[in-house]
Parts: sequence; structure tokens; C-alpha cells
Amino acid sequence: MTLEQLRQAVCDANRALASHRLVTLTWGNVSGRSDDGELMAIKPSGVPYAELSAEQIVVVRIATGDVVLGDLRPSSDTPTHRVLYEAFRGVGGVTHTHSPRATAWAQARRALPCFGSTHADHFHGPVPVTRGLTAEEVADDYETQTGRVIVERFERIDPQATPGVLVAGHAPFTWGATPAASVENAVALEAVAAMALDTLQLDAAARPLEPHLLDKHHERKHGADAYYGQTAEDR
Amino acid sequence: MTLEQLRQAVCDANRALASHRLVTLTWGNVSGRSDDGELMAIKPSGVPYAELSAEQIVVVRIATGDVVLGDLRPSSDTPTHRVLYEAFRGVGGVTHTHSPRATAWAQARRALPCFGSTHADHFHGPVPVTRGLTAEEVADDYETQTGRVIVERFERIDPQATPGVLVAGHAPFTWGATPAASVENAVALEAVAAMALDTLQLDAAARPLEPHLLDKHHERKHGADAYYGQTAEDR
Amino acid sequence: MTLEQLRQAVCDANRALASHRLVTLTWGNVSGRSDDGELMAIKPSGVPYAELSAEQIVVVRIATGDVVLGDLRPSSDTPTHRVLYEAFRGVGGVTHTHSPRATAWAQARRALPCFGSTHADHFHGPVPVTRGLTAEEVADDYETQTGRVIVERFERIDPQATPGVLVAGHAPFTWGATPAASVENAVALEAVAAMALDTLQLDAAARPLEPHLLDKHHERKHGADAYYGQTAEDR
Amino acid sequence: MTLEQLRQAVCDANRALASHRLVTLTWGNVSGRSDDGELMAIKPSGVPYAELSAEQIVVVRIATGDVVLGDLRPSSDTPTHRVLYEAFRGVGGVTHTHSPRATAWAQARRALPCFGSTHADHFHGPVPVTRGLTAEEVADDYETQTGRVIVERFERIDPQATPGVLVAGHAPFTWGATPAASVENAVALEAVAAMALDTLQLDAAARPLEPHLLDKHHERKHGADAYYGQTAEDR
Repeated sequence: MTLEQLRQAVCDANRALASHRLVTLTWGNVSGRSDDGELMAIKPSGVPYAELSAEQIVVVRIATGDVVLGDLRPSSDTPTHRVLYEAFRGVGGVTHTHSPRATAWAQARRALPCFGSTHADHFHGPVPVTRGLTAEEVADDYETQTGRVIVERFERIDPQATPGVLVAGHAPFTWGATPAASVENAVALEAVAAMALDTLQLDAAARPLEPHLLDKHHERKHGADAYYGQTAEDR
Repeated sequence: MTLEQLRQAVCDANRALASHRLVTLTWGNVSGRSDDGELMAIKPSGVPYAELSAEQIVVVRIATGDVVLGDLRPSSDTPTHRVLYEAFRGVGGVTHTHSPRATAWAQARRALPCFGSTHADHFHGPVPVTRGLTAEEVADDYETQTGRVIVERFERIDPQATPGVLVAGHAPFTWGATPAASVENAVALEAVAAMALDTLQLDAAARPLEPHLLDKHHERKHGADAYYGQTAEDR
Repeated sequence: MTLEQLRQAVCDANRALASHRLVTLTWGNVSGRSDDGELMAIKPSGVPYAELSAEQIVVVRIATGDVVLGDLRPSSDTPTHRVLYEAFRGVGGVTHTHSPRATAWAQARRALPCFGSTHADHFHGPVPVTRGLTAEEVADDYETQTGRVIVERFERIDPQATPGVLVAGHAPFTWGATPAASVENAVALEAVAAMALDTLQLDAAARPLEPHLLDKHHERKHGADAYYGQTAEDR
Repeated sequence: MTLEQLRQAVCDANRALASHRLVTLTWGNVSGRSDDGELMAIKPSGVPYAELSAEQIVVVRIATGDVVLGDLRPSSDTPTHRVLYEAFRGVGGVTHTHSPRATAWAQARRALPCFGSTHADHFHGPVPVTRGLTAEEVADDYETQTGRVIVERFERIDPQATPGVLVAGHAPFTWGATPAASVENAVALEAVAAMALDTLQLDAAARPLEPHLLDKHHERKHGADAYYGQTAEDR
């Protein structure tokens, strides 16, 4: 993928946030990693989704944060995206939203339990919540530290199997192999966050999905013998 | 109805899932049975609703699962649909969604009580919830076993009078005389699932509709002397 | 207004149910009374809103229920509308929906308290709930009896000041001077039903609006010195 | 900005209420202040948003309430807007809605706590709730007194840092440097009101955001060294 193709993919993914109704005002951004792994393309800060064009997408060097391409200022969340790309090697796209139900879980600082197959199809177990940032971390380099508490939380969790997190007091981040895949996980996270709220209203002691079902749903979609969707030859 | 007409009806019914906002991403599928009862037409796996065309609909032999028509892989839920057609003789269409409110009831593993006439117009009593699948059932042939626990749950329930079920930890299935009728029942199920959540918020001990009202609403719409809608001559 | 103008107004009002998202499938109907007070025009049963035309609207004699104009069968709720027109003399339009939040209150069989000015602008006090119908009433002439329990409930309530009701275990009816006004009250009822659910979630012991505010909001919009909106001369 | 430009900006801001789905029927209005600070332009009373044109916007002298331009009657809430412009000097736009979730908080008479960064980006601390108006205040000059209880509530709160309020038993008002900015704060208020309802459902004892995070989010967007969005030069 050329850088221009990456910018187009990132532009499309950001616009998809709006068509999936995941964003209010300009509260969300998607980025994508270049094929060589060194650069990321990200939404410019504060630009409405409906007006976004590929040329406005900003390309940034992951290691340094330097702007390589683009005339606008990158999203203020750029340092968080950079930390995630550095730590999560297989990830090619990152999405940040303040989608309302997932954000409610982040604000309540509760991990989102896996109550059913909808969740298991996308996240292999609970979607974890980070600890809160300390005053020192906020003062130092807030957005970078936000990335670091996410990475800290995934010390013993596989980010490929659980491609999303709730940042305490803030909002969700999701990721995937591509920018579009990270948006799809953001869509799924918002949907299962809503379902889980209603599940708990119906049974405050609702139990998580049985491990054999959790594993089955994950495997049939993401495992070596996945049989969901079309294979490359089918398409 | 020719097979081509069936494929068109199934295509239309799948697209109606999206226009009724019952589906997120590609989480849902509708199938329809051929006039001779031997075949079913179903959505291909993982194809977006907006792009779906009649030629993409896959025709499968119900008894064997063999693909009779179509180049794409059928929905991964095909074995569940097959079991339902084999067990429920009068059924001509089956719909599966992860519509959010009905799915919350499935995740909470609670049968959906009939709290009012909206529910009674479509389901003659509570919408039942299945038991969970065992690890053995999941390992054996998951989607077929999903159909079997549904059929097991209807051992003493008339599937014509109660055209829907909540699969525990998973999501709803509905059915009807045609693919479109099964979608209509999915729409009704999601609506009454939402109303019932709010009813319980207002009164955690809310009582089900009185039997005389339950029967009346069912009879006026589905009974021998039904007087809802237009008769064939009126149209 | 000629009968043709009345049919057009009733057609428009029924289509407005859909544009205000008050109806699912064909769960709702609006009627209007003729200038001489003897006839009412109402939606035909089971016809989708998007396909509805003025010529399909059925005109019925209120006193007898005889169809005066129209080839289709009138709404199955026609007897309820007839009873309301006979009992509530100033009413020129009646709306019935299964709008989800108002229906939840009807299912929980709780009167909807007036918690704020939004409610007070449309309903001068709580929106009452009827008693349930007996088995005898349901067996006798269900839709007529539904009208009668509404009228019974308004024995000591002014239907002009409180233009709506929740039928226990069923759904809301609203009314107004015109078909459009009855739809507007249905829109308001659904909105305040939703707000009241959330109000009770925040404070299960929430108190109703103070009487001086209740009266003020009612008077400024509906009283002799109303000053909301444009006067005929302003328009 | 000329008066005609102001009327256009106020017309656009009122129409934005509808596109952001903040209003039902005609329940909301936006005003804007003229550059000399003496006049305000406001929506006419009872006119649907879709039909609104700049020429219909009414211009009123803030000090006296006299209509300076426009043939229609100004919003019945005009006296409230006037009091806010007189008391809050830096404010150039005021929005009033009955948006459902914010109104539920107003009806429950609970201040809206800051549970997360979404809130902190727009409101530097809780959104306060006024006291209820007395019978005397309602009888005297209701809409003016509504403005006065808001101003009374902000005696020790900076209206620039907290650009919104919940009027007890009524609904929210928000403000900002321009009419569009006041609408943006109304959008944010409704969003965080919804998130906070869900946050409390998940944890009835949820704690507010830590002060260091509250301050950080406010500063990065509104402080002297704000780095959110594009600077004038970037655009």
C-alpha cells in the first residue's frame, strides 16, 4: 500500500465512524500504519468527518512524532496511537471514539464482561479497563502516558485476541490489522457495551459466557480453521 | 414460487434487516424454504446487506447441507436453519439477528414475558430461552446443536403460535410462513424486548398480560376469524 | 373542511406517525372527525404508512360504524376511536400508537407523573392509566370496551386538559382538536414517557412538578392569554 | 458581523438543533448577540426548524425586549435569554433545548457530575441545577425569573468554564462565544447526560473524574496553551 492509499484508507475509516454513528461532534479518530511499519497516518485535529479528504490526513513518524506529510495538525491523541503501534506489533489500525455506551463502562471503570457470542466473536474475554493516570503522569505527557497505561494493562493479555480497551475515566480504544478492522472492532465494542448494560439490568448477577462457547466463537472467526465469511477464493 | 423468486425474496428479506436497523455489521441472516420443502435459500456469509443481490443467495439442500446453487459460502448459521426447517414443518422463513434488546434477554438467559398486546399480537405467551449448550455439543457440531436445543425447547410449545426463541448466551431466532414474515417477527421481538426492559424498570414485579387478553390479541390477528389487516379480496 | 380534505389530513397525520418514528410495522393509526361531527376518517387496517394515500382512508359513520367511503377495511381499532369521539365532544382527531416508552408505562400500569415543563406544556397533570378489561369485556366487543374504559377513567378528568391515556397492558391513545394535534400529543407523550423513565432512574422518589409551574406552563400555551407560538395575525 | 449575518448565523444554529436531533417538535431555540452587545437575534416562537429562514429571525433589544427587526413574535423564552446576556458578559450565543437526557437530570433536580473526559472537555466540573422557582416568581414574570435563578446559581461559578445549567423541573440552557458554540455545548451536554445515566447504572457510587484530569482536559481545549483543533493559521 502506498502512502496515498494509506491516507485514503484512513480517511475512509474516519468517515465510517460517522456513518456508524460512533462519534458526536469531532470526538474520535482513526489511524493506520504504513507497510514498512515506520509511519502512521491519522485524522487531523478538530476537522468534521463530512469534510475530511485524504489530503488532510496527516502522516507522522511513529518513533519521533514528526509530521512527514500534511498541512494540518494531527489529532491531539496522536501520542497515544504512537505508543500502541510501538507496543502492539501486529496492529495496522487504531480507533479512538467516545461512543456513548463503551464510554459509560470506561467512566464506571468496570471491565466489560463477555456475556454472549456477539462479544466473543470480537473479543476473546472481557474488554479490560486501565487504571487511572496519576497527577504526575497527566502533568508529564498526558497522551503518551495514556498509551502507556493501556500497554501496561495488556502485560498479560494478547492484544490480538482482545483488540480493545477502556481507558478509565476517558473512553475506548480499539485496534485491528487495518484501519477498517479497528473501526469494526469499535462498532462491535459499542454494541456489546449496550447489550451488557441491558443484560445487567435484567440480571445484576449475570454470568459470563461459558469458556467452551467463548473459545468456539473466537476460533470459528479468527482461528486457523475459521469458517466465517468468504475465503479469498470465494470472493 | 420458482427458485429465482425465492432467492429474490430472501435477498429482499435480508436487506430489510438493515432497513429495520436490526443488524450491526453482518450480524444476521434470513433464509426461505422452497415450495417443495426440500431446499432453502440463505444469505452468503459475511457479505454486507447493501451489496447483496439475489444471485449471491445460496441455495442448500435441507437434508444434506449440499450447495445446489450459488458461488459463495452460505451463512455459518446454515446448519441451525436446516434443523429448524426439518423440525418445524409449517415454517417457510427463518431469521437470525443479534438485535440488541432481544440479545440482552438471551444473554441474561431470561424468557421474555408477555407484558402487553404488542407482544400478544406476535407471540402467544413468553418467548422462551434455551438451555446453554454443553462443551460436548459445542465441540461436536456447534451450529447443528444450536438448532437442536431450540427444537428441544419447543417440545411442548407450538412454534406457529410462538414464532421465536432466545438462544442462551447467544441471540434470537424467529420464523414465519415466509422469509418476510420471519423478519416481521424479528422486528416485533426486538420491539417487545425493549418495552419489557422498560416495563421491568418501572415495576420489577410487573405481571404478564391476563390470559383473556393474550388469547384475544392472538385470535384477532392469527385465529380462524382474524379481522386485522385486509383480506385477500380487500386488497 | 370537505371530506376529501379530511381524508388528506388524516392520511398526512398517519404518515407523520412514521416520520416521527412513533410506529413500528403498522402499529398505529390516526383518525379525524368531520365538521358536522357525524363521520370520522381513519387509516385502513394493515396498510404500510409509506404506501398510504388519501383515497385509501376509510370514512365511517361514528354512531353506527358503517363505512361511508372507501374500499378497504378500516383499522381494527375503529370502535375505540368511535367511542372517544362520542364521549369527548371537542375532539377532532385521535391517535393510537404502540410507541415504545409510553407503551412501557401502559404495560407497567403506572400513570405517567408530570415531572417537568415538557410534560406540563401538553398534559395538565399525570397521564392516567385505565383499569384492565375483564374477561367479559374482552369477549363482548373488545375494541368498543377499550374505548369505554378510557371514558370511564376520564369521569373526573378534563380530556381537553389531559389529551391522552395509557390503556393498561396495551398502549397509549392521544387526541386533539385536529388529527395533526392528536399526533403532536402522541409525540409529546412518547418524549415525556422516556424522560420520566430516566428521571426515575436518577431518583426513584422524584417529585412531580410544583402546581404553580404545572398551571403556568399549561396556561401559557393553552389558556385564554396564551403567548406561545404565533397568533393568527402574526403568521 | 452585520445584523443580517447574525440572523443567518442564528438561523443556521437553530436548524443545527434539528440536525443534531436535540429537539422534538419546536422545543428549543438559539439566540446570538450583536457585535455592539446591545441586540440579540432569536428564533420566532413555534416555527418548525425545517421552514426557518434568516428573515424570520427576530432581533430584540436586550435591555428592553423591544423588537427591532422581524415580523414574527420572538420565542417565549426571550426574557430568559436577555437576562443571561446581561449577566454573562463574554457570552455571544445561548441555546435552550428539552433534549431528553439532560432534561431528565433537570427533572430529577440533580447536578450532572463530571464522570469523564468527554464532560471535562466542555464543562469544567459538574453542570449545576438551579433551585425551583417560587409561586411568586412564576406569577411575576416567569421567563425573566428563570433567567434570574440561573444567574443566582452562577454566583460562585464561572459561566465561561461551565457553559451550561439545568433548570429544575424544566430543561437545560447552554451558552458560548457564538450561537454555534452554544449549540455545540448543548450537543455535548446531552451526550454526557446520557453517558452519566449509564455510568450510574453500572456503579451507583461512581466517583467524579480526578481533579488533575478535569483540569488537564479543560486546559488542553480551552486554556492559554490549548492544543486541540487547528489554530487560525492551520486552517
